[in-house]
Amino acid sequence: MFYTLIILLFHVNQQFYADVNIHEEMIADTIRTNTYRLGILRNRKAMEGKVVLDVGAGTGVLSIFCAQAGARKVYAVEASSIVEQAVRIVKLNSMEDRVEVIKGTLETVDLPEQVDVIVSEWMGYALLHESMLNSVIFARDKWLKPGGLILPDKAELFIAPINDLVVEDRLNFWSTVKSQYGVDMSSMTDFAKKCIMNRDITVNLVTVEDVLSHPSKFADLDLYTVTMENLRSVRGGFRCECFGSSSINAFCVWFAVTFAGEDKPLVLSTSPFSPETHWKQAVLYLDEAVDVMQDTKVEGRINMYPSEESARHIFYCMCVISYRLDYFLWLCVCVCMCVI
Amino acid sequence: MFYTLIILLFHVNQQFYADVNIHEEMIADTIRTNTYRLGILRNRKAMEGKVVLDVGAGTGVLSIFCAQAGARKVYAVEASSIVEQAVRIVKLNSMEDRVEVIKGTLETVDLPEQVDVIVSEWMGYALLHESMLNSVIFARDKWLKPGGLILPDKAELFIAPINDLVVEDRLNFWSTVKSQYGVDMSSMTDFAKKCIMNRDITVNLVTVEDVLSHPSKFADLDLYTVTMENLRSVRGGFRCECFGSSSINAFCVWFAVTFAGEDKPLVLSTSPFSPETHWKQAVLYLDEAVDVMQDTKVEGRINMYPSEESARHIFYCMCVISYRLDYFLWLCVCVCMCVI
Repeated sequence: MFYTLIILLFHVNQQFYADVNIHEEMIADTIRTNTYRLGILRNRKAMEGKVVLDVGAGTGVLSIFCAQAGARKVYAVEASSIVEQAVRIVKLNSMEDRVEVIKGTLETVDLPEQVDVIVSEWMGYALLHESMLNSVIFARDKWLKPGGLILPDKAELFIAPINDLVVEDRLNFWSTVKSQYGVDMSSMTDFAKKCIMNRDITVNLVTVEDVLSHPSKFADLDLYTVTMENLRSVRGGFRCECFGSSSINAFCVWFAVTFAGEDKPLVLSTSPFSPETHWKQAVLYLDEAVDVMQDTKVEGRINMYPSEESARHIFYCMCVISYRLDYFLWLCVCVCMCVI
Repeated sequence: MFYTLIILLFHVNQQFYADVNIHEEMIADTIRTNTYRLGILRNRKAMEGKVVLDVGAGTGVLSIFCAQAGARKVYAVEASSIVEQAVRIVKLNSMEDRVEVIKGTLETVDLPEQVDVIVSEWMGYALLHESMLNSVIFARDKWLKPGGLILPDKAELFIAPINDLVVEDRLNFWSTVKSQYGVDMSSMTDFAKKCIMNRDITVNLVTVEDVLSHPSKFADLDLYTVTMENLRSVRGGFRCECFGSSSINAFCVWFAVTFAGEDKPLVLSTSPFSPETHWKQAVLYLDEAVDVMQDTKVEGRINMYPSEESARHIFYCMCVISYRLDYFLWLCVCVCMCVI
């Protein structure tokens, strides 16, 4: 006697899959979620009895934090299909009276009233990569009451030169093939270099040991005043002094956002010197490594602007970095290069 | 006085990138590359002075192994742009007189002669996922001399029930959110289950501890006789007896290929009981976990067939598994489920 069970496997549900992965990663990022939670809860006085708009609400967790902080009404606007899960979560937490989940894009949605507070987790890799900042600006200009609150209200961008050892190992790999299999594949190094070090944004976890100088801030965004026009080119100068002798094969870019409050501002930092977040750091590889010594000055300008290829205000970082070395130090670098 | 260097970063070179990653992964997979190397070198007698066709030559490393084994001529056929690197590698190894790199698809290429040996690394995830086996069959039927050699010449497919702990942890995560952030997100578990456990092929590293029975072989492919028609449905029965009390939440599928030789055949196995390869294992999740006990028999049939959605003979595994539990044991399983 047998019990037979037919199971149909391998449905093609890639979209679903992507959805849960992203949301799991964001919620499991305790630095991100706890800083937002605290940033919202410590603004309890500003939230009490007020109306909030959550731009890109996702699973609705920030909207619920706002309701827990005393908001009278939260409009949780989300364009993707995860909105269905947000509805379920709001219901599960008995927040239907205070949190209204709205499916749609911020640019087309029609709210019944102006709002006192805008909350949003809009940041992408390197802050602006596929970010929703344009939607936040749109929401601010259309729906925020004069004198209203934005959480977070400030974003900063940082840069530092690094020596990425993982990439060095990967490039060196092709020279080791001959000893392993008896086939010389060292000619692949150039190709690998082109592939790895000369392309679109790379998101890596940069360790403190890789960072070769104190960070330099190159841009500030004030969420109350920044315009979409400003986002067409987010740029600034930087100046770093190297800790010691090493080789710069990349620059590392990261961001921090700040939540105002009655006490000291609360900072969500994605620095390699801070605990790891799911944003990690953005790595900008150089075509050729440059040797540096202690106190070598590395100066330059960085410009981040939207990709011309991508529509829908999705940001691609495209950067030009120029860096200047003091002539004398540069000579030293040359000598080092010859000696090594 | 300053030295100024302008560096243009962030070229969009995704295709390049993909290329080197794949080839680095394959060459760095020492189990794969060494087994091919040995499988070729131990057939020195069959190679000596002969003509070889390498189907999907990639960087050309297998072609060079064949030349090192004494082949008079190797035609290294490769359709993708990595072929340019193969040309450079062949030259670097001074093999231009013996290894001829040809850019093109096997189906359209015109060789000046029939070949004595076909060598190919055609296996994809779960053997048939995006595999090039059709091209190998085409090459055999069109270019291989009667009595010629194929390396490898045999492929086998295996299955075993597993308990995937990583997925259990991921599903359980959503029930932990409330204690962490004060928001009940347990309703996400169902959604996560749909996303993770009910979709296209999943490639994971399965540990020996996860495997709940001895493996069962469900299909054999003889490279000398298999036809493209056969590949429209690669299927077979399986029967496993569970080691002990546990819960089956997935099946694991893997393959082995065999290189004939004068001595004992050489096997390249991707079993979870063998050293790790870049193929890892294919995991087929069940909609619902099933508790089992020691000696519970799990029987069924598995059918792998090409996706109707994908063109160009690219294989997608689509499976139906049915499994039968002895009625008595199934009752026990029910009891266990109630007790826990």
